[in-house]
Amino acid sequence: MKATVMYGPRDVRFEDRPDPELMKPTDAIIRLAATSVCGSDLWPYRGLQPTDEPTPMGHEYCGVVEEVGRDVKTLRPGQFVVGSFFASDNSCPVCQYGYQTSCQQTEFVGGAQAPYLRVPLADGTLVAVAETPDAAFIPSLQAVSDVLGTGWFAARAANVQPGSTTVVVGDGAVGLLGVLSARQMGAERIIAMSRHAPRQALAREFGATDVITERGDEGVARIMDMTGGLGADSVLECVGTQESMMQAIHAARPGGHVGYVGVPHGVTLDGQQLFFEHVHLHGGPAPVRQYLPELIDLVLDGAINPGKVFDLTLPLDQVAEGYRAMDERIAIKALLMP
Amino acid sequence: MKATVMYGPRDVRFEDRPDPELMKPTDAIIRLAATSVCGSDLWPYRGLQPTDEPTPMGHEYCGVVEEVGRDVKTLRPGQFVVGSFFASDNSCPVCQYGYQTSCQQTEFVGGAQAPYLRVPLADGTLVAVAETPDAAFIPSLQAVSDVLGTGWFAARAANVQPGSTTVVVGDGAVGLLGVLSARQMGAERIIAMSRHAPRQALAREFGATDVITERGDEGVARIMDMTGGLGADSVLECVGTQESMMQAIHAARPGGHVGYVGVPHGVTLDGQQLFFEHVHLHGGPAPVRQYLPELIDLVLDGAINPGKVFDLTLPLDQVAEGYRAMDERIAIKALLMP
Repeated sequence: MKATVMYGPRDVRFEDRPDPELMKPTDAIIRLAATSVCGSDLWPYRGLQPTDEPTPMGHEYCGVVEEVGRDVKTLRPGQFVVGSFFASDNSCPVCQYGYQTSCQQTEFVGGAQAPYLRVPLADGTLVAVAETPDAAFIPSLQAVSDVLGTGWFAARAANVQPGSTTVVVGDGAVGLLGVLSARQMGAERIIAMSRHAPRQALAREFGATDVITERGDEGVARIMDMTGGLGADSVLECVGTQESMMQAIHAARPGGHVGYVGVPHGVTLDGQQLFFEHVHLHGGPAPVRQYLPELIDLVLDGAINPGKVFDLTLPLDQVAEGYRAMDERIAIKALLMP
Repeated sequence: MKATVMYGPRDVRFEDRPDPELMKPTDAIIRLAATSVCGSDLWPYRGLQPTDEPTPMGHEYCGVVEEVGRDVKTLRPGQFVVGSFFASDNSCPVCQYGYQTSCQQTEFVGGAQAPYLRVPLADGTLVAVAETPDAAFIPSLQAVSDVLGTGWFAARAANVQPGSTTVVVGDGAVGLLGVLSARQMGAERIIAMSRHAPRQALAREFGATDVITERGDEGVARIMDMTGGLGADSVLECVGTQESMMQAIHAARPGGHVGYVGVPHGVTLDGQQLFFEHVHLHGGPAPVRQYLPELIDLVLDGAINPGKVFDLTLPLDQVAEGYRAMDERIAIKALLMP
């Protein structure tokens, strides 16, 4: 097959790769219905994270089971499935606590920007959809696989409750779906921080009640003005830089919650400053597996349409163009069709 | 009056000071029944925090109302009261969220190692006891004022629940009362980290089910052994150093909670490391005011006896000896009787 390999900064190639094979009896091979480029793929693309050797890319996926190992109990070829970027057994104590991305057997699922993918721990990792979904649902099911699940975790980690005042830092696909998540969880006021017109529009469509363009200290001052000097109950940090993290922490009220899902790059927190902020801090790699059944149902029920974050659809062999468009912020997120 | 003033490292004097007076109509003057030395008083005593000018010391107190300003509505001379180290109006939005130490009008209450003390925002800050308590209750009511309230907040911030496995980092008075708090909240297993025999004994008396002497990476490894490789549900960080903070974070399970109340000195957290730890982090200056009514009742009902942390009682004029004994870890905590 041909698949996506990153060689280094801005060097993404679509080239011959061996077809994936079952390596363990708990594996499955799936034929992808869709795949996509993740915001986190841009860290190595931009050279902000080293690429030590040519690396098969992609970790967002849905598709049809092609083959299963002999120990796979719950899946059979032909089923449509959605999975997440970390394989998990979904049965160890950590999984039972709902932290499948810290599963005691966890393994990264890489190489999904391809026509076929090997998924480890298939019974635990994959969630089957009862019937093969209509093609119109594919973008949203693909969004569920990572970017919606991550926005959802940000909102849960930020303790969004009915009536909450919520701020979302970051207008990438995760931030925008953080807005959607906060709306689903009943937030009364959702303040999106964005200065890009198409993203502002999508934020409003997903449920943002306010959009502000200020950033950093000015952004925090604006939020203080809007909340009677108090700060927000819940803040979703969906970027991962020092500036965005501090903006999130300062935007929360005393006793408020910051949920952070942007993979921190070069972020350090001063313990004493954090102490006097009085905020709750929680985040990490989103345990998307926990949310898959619920989010798949919301999509198939037509309650949400997270696939709208894909504003660029390309055939898989044009994957490099997808990276370029996201890097230059021409596209919010690229959907790739094998 | 004579009162306690810190001039610099290891230079604590008991000397003439003006009697406190009402400065605002919302103030009260109280005559102290007891006062004490706090672990945080040792930071400047040890020169780890600068003393820029001679500073009246002490912020833990209970006693009898002597005089009230004309705007004080709920208190009258003769009432026995307990207060906390930050004055709070107990009515602003932040107080209503239970974060009185971040009250919009907050003011530090200093100079309590003295016979008399001015307390700002008296209606909000002080909680009156229905009847003048028996002298036997004074040490425990004094403990409620700060050190128990702080241990209690650590346990709340660490989300201690019935059945929780809880670790307490730090065997000072706050850590020991963190053990008591976790027990009151129903923790099933309470692992105290201590290598000092008298503190180990008190930890067990307060409810610790296990005491371990290992620290740092070895301490974390021991906790992992004791929890099936998982880590603890709740960890109370009651020290405030880099080592203790990392020990606390590493001892928590994925999705576990770290409640930190040791004022951080020189602590920095790496964002990416914290991200992959998957822990909840919450802490800050304990909003003791929130807990005063509940904790006073527990003391007067005889349900708890937090006053046992005072293993040294001195007349107030020997305050310098109290600092010395705590600095040298000869005493856990010094009670001072005016």
